[in-house]
Amino acid sequence: MTGNAPKLAIEAALDYDFAEPTDVLLQLEAAFIPEQTVEAAHIDLSPVEHFARVLGQDTIGERIWLRLQGRLTVRYTATVAVHRICGELAALPAVPPHLLPGEAVQYMLPSRYCPSDQFANLVDAEFGALAGGARVMAMRDWVQSQFTYRSGTSTATTTALDSFVQREGVCRDFAHVLITLARASAIPARFASVYALGVEPQDFHAVPEVFLDGAWYLVDPTGMAKAEEMAKIGVGRDAADVSFLTSYGWAQMNSQSVRVSAA
Amino acid sequence: MTGNAPKLAIEAALDYDFAEPTDVLLQLEAAFIPEQTVEAAHIDLSPVEHFARVLGQDTIGERIWLRLQGRLTVRYTATVAVHRICGELAALPAVPPHLLPGEAVQYMLPSRYCPSDQFANLVDAEFGALAGGARVMAMRDWVQSQFTYRSGTSTATTTALDSFVQREGVCRDFAHVLITLARASAIPARFASVYALGVEPQDFHAVPEVFLDGAWYLVDPTGMAKAEEMAKIGVGRDAADVSFLTSYGWAQMNSQSVRVSAA
Amino acid sequence: MTGNAPKLAIEAALDYDFAEPTDVLLQLEAAFIPEQTVEAAHIDLSPVEHFARVLGQDTIGERIWLRLQGRLTVRYTATVAVHRICGELAALPAVPPHLLPGEAVQYMLPSRYCPSDQFANLVDAEFGALAGGARVMAMRDWVQSQFTYRSGTSTATTTALDSFVQREGVCRDFAHVLITLARASAIPARFASVYALGVEPQDFHAVPEVFLDGAWYLVDPTGMAKAEEMAKIGVGRDAADVSFLTSYGWAQMNSQSVRVSAA
Amino acid sequence: MTGNAPKLAIEAALDYDFAEPTDVLLQLEAAFIPEQTVEAAHIDLSPVEHFARVLGQDTIGERIWLRLQGRLTVRYTATVAVHRICGELAALPAVPPHLLPGEAVQYMLPSRYCPSDQFANLVDAEFGALAGGARVMAMRDWVQSQFTYRSGTSTATTTALDSFVQREGVCRDFAHVLITLARASAIPARFASVYALGVEPQDFHAVPEVFLDGAWYLVDPTGMAKAEEMAKIGVGRDAADVSFLTSYGWAQMNSQSVRVSAA
Repeated sequence: MTGNAPKLAIEAALDYDFAEPTDVLLQLEAAFIPEQTVEAAHIDLSPVEHFARVLGQDTIGERIWLRLQGRLTVRYTATVAVHRICGELAALPAVPPHLLPGEAVQYMLPSRYCPSDQFANLVDAEFGALAGGARVMAMRDWVQSQFTYRSGTSTATTTALDSFVQREGVCRDFAHVLITLARASAIPARFASVYALGVEPQDFHAVPEVFLDGAWYLVDPTGMAKAEEMAKIGVGRDAADVSFLTSYGWAQMNSQSVRVSAA
Repeated sequence: MTGNAPKLAIEAALDYDFAEPTDVLLQLEAAFIPEQTVEAAHIDLSPVEHFARVLGQDTIGERIWLRLQGRLTVRYTATVAVHRICGELAALPAVPPHLLPGEAVQYMLPSRYCPSDQFANLVDAEFGALAGGARVMAMRDWVQSQFTYRSGTSTATTTALDSFVQREGVCRDFAHVLITLARASAIPARFASVYALGVEPQDFHAVPEVFLDGAWYLVDPTGMAKAEEMAKIGVGRDAADVSFLTSYGWAQMNSQSVRVSAA
Repeated sequence: MTGNAPKLAIEAALDYDFAEPTDVLLQLEAAFIPEQTVEAAHIDLSPVEHFARVLGQDTIGERIWLRLQGRLTVRYTATVAVHRICGELAALPAVPPHLLPGEAVQYMLPSRYCPSDQFANLVDAEFGALAGGARVMAMRDWVQSQFTYRSGTSTATTTALDSFVQREGVCRDFAHVLITLARASAIPARFASVYALGVEPQDFHAVPEVFLDGAWYLVDPTGMAKAEEMAKIGVGRDAADVSFLTSYGWAQMNSQSVRVSAA
Repeated sequence: MTGNAPKLAIEAALDYDFAEPTDVLLQLEAAFIPEQTVEAAHIDLSPVEHFARVLGQDTIGERIWLRLQGRLTVRYTATVAVHRICGELAALPAVPPHLLPGEAVQYMLPSRYCPSDQFANLVDAEFGALAGGARVMAMRDWVQSQFTYRSGTSTATTTALDSFVQREGVCRDFAHVLITLARASAIPARFASVYALGVEPQDFHAVPEVFLDGAWYLVDPTGMAKAEEMAKIGVGRDAADVSFLTSYGWAQMNSQSVRVSAA
């Protein structure tokens, strides 16, 4: 099953300090899901007061609840074989809304960073001649050609409405714009946090995932990574849902690093 | 079990026109959930091309997918006995984040209309002396006393950030503000669409639901309705998730009405 | 001088009620400026406690401060001969920023409804091949062809950022988008309140005015009115500056009407 | 006249690079206005292609238009004697709107970063018992006590609406909030760019100025500086109007510094 499948060697390291006793939510392990086989995964944490796993959104991956004070170091390594079916999106039909399964409905709706309710006229005007996968690919190509990848131009409050006119940002912002355009087109779209080959500089990566012809497909509008070379960590409505570290209290980041290479 | 339980007699009627073949999502039936017993529910629709039920969010209630062209009339009647445990919220402790179940995590996160990520300092400053149910009640009292219920002042793009300073709106806006304050306090909060006694003028009603001491509790910051006299239709992150009618195409509303009385 | 000049016959009527003693700012008279000759203007107001004229922004037109309680009726009639130089904008050069006069600088800057600071990359990408009047005309044509004139879709908080993606609105919104695109292109642009022939339905009209080749030019992205058939009331940075009636307290509108015809 | 007046010794230095020929707007010299005497001012610039002075907003101070390519160094030194009348604001009455001079009207209106139109109900509820200078001082005290001065938390798109709930920011954000509250109270308020004693860390400073009893008064909600120890550079509706350096093209900042000491 993992014969010719691309294999990713993943290393991620976090080093944080928490002055007070703090609740922390981690989400950085490759998910155990049919489309990828996680081999030899290890996670090492410095001592914490509390450690508990809960299921991630859509039961994809897990989140880890911690409670601790002081320094937190996390070291995660894994080898993941990817056997995701990718194929030619442009040929795939959209599922008409009235035939969508219940669990896809939430990904039609606007979210914190994806106010798709405001974009209905725009997608009709700009992409109205296309449907389904062909429309998704046209929107992806448009984002990739019109937007400049640039760090430091977006913040934790930047929405797809801002990014749409600013025409720049990082993977998170590219993803929000494409997700917003897809939802405004009545195509369910969610936000996937992934490890991927080819991301420069190396970091956690974010990629939209669209629902076409009854299945979910990763589509990277930054053009940096291929769907068959990504290991999924988790999914959500947008970046708000899949932060790799969320702290309920003051946190100081000392360092963090991600390395993904072909295994 | 429903001996002394309050009973609600519900009637809702919609009358819409769709010029083109259109996909429509309905969510207006009282949910079949342990906390309420739905007796004698009927839903009558004018002829449609397609009708399918899917589960609502958190498996609470159902959504109905329709496809049709022309006129749509919906008439829904039900009697619902409510045996929700309500009690005194002020005495309930919050669940510390690190002990939250996985399915509650999404209700800690910001959403389309509830940018709770911006309110952390504010809730610390204004409500920092209180925790858990006592904090929720203080926030509820504050919203109820500071906000004026007024139709026509908010729109489909009004967020809790806008409402927080505008100090006016309808049930949707009151709910968004309280949900935002709760999430910023690390208390999971979701948006419930309900039928309720006491809503004036009669209409679909929206009420925040907070997660305290391991269970969900309805808290109405408009002060119009009591938790034990509400029949839940569905829940979601905010108003975006539980619209009673969503049309994927142009719709004309001819009339709609809601009547809730003690049965 | 007014020989062949188009002449506008203007009638405007307001009818409002103020329950409390209230300060009111009116701005609805055609301005006495070189480009238009105001003939036979009359303004009749019901009794007020206080009436004072102050200069409008850029010393164009006047604002009227009132103080009153109870009913206010205003009836304004005027005949205005317009001898504005219009010509072919497409051939006009922009004034390079470093040669702009001091009074034009404020119209390069973002304002309440025109966050032009967010649109710099977009105008480069979409209109970068053009400069000056040719760029303004291309932006005007784009707005006119891409936006739908539709009442009731925008509100008092709708900005050009919202309108840009919503692709619909009224004259105010069309103006805000074009002003924003011009400023982002380093072309000063302001918002003019006018009476104009051809506005359907008849109402106060709003039109962007751009600074090219050392002078201001009206450009209507709704396509409803011609610059030589407009009588200017006042100018400002955006709609916030030239409301025809601003009330410092609760006001009830009973009726208002505008009629503009060829005299 | 400048006998016992506080004297400020000011030094400001900018060092920027412009890869392309670029238009640049500077505004960093202390204004020649009756309330302060500028003694011995010098400005030294590296060679530029074009240099022109234009009047600042409200004819306070000057802006300098430059055109240049390559490196720009600016060194400004001045001694300024301040003989501003400060007095006890709390005792000053507001000017009723209907008695406001024409030039104050624009400072009643919302602007890019000060959406005062959204705060009317809030100021009524929170500060409705006070008027004029007493209200301004209560609002100033509230901002000072509720907000934390913290760099890096706000960006070029942060408005007073954001800051109001985030409860943190830098002088620009403190100023925007107080200006917004004042305008929502029908008290004209503008944004002054100043050099001031006591600013820590030393930098350009921003302070609201309110119109009370017929004159403008500086009020610093950060509490860092006194009105009698500030030298005004320029004024505007908000930060958008008084940037010390605006570049119409890509700019790279190498360094900048401000030093203000008692002379």
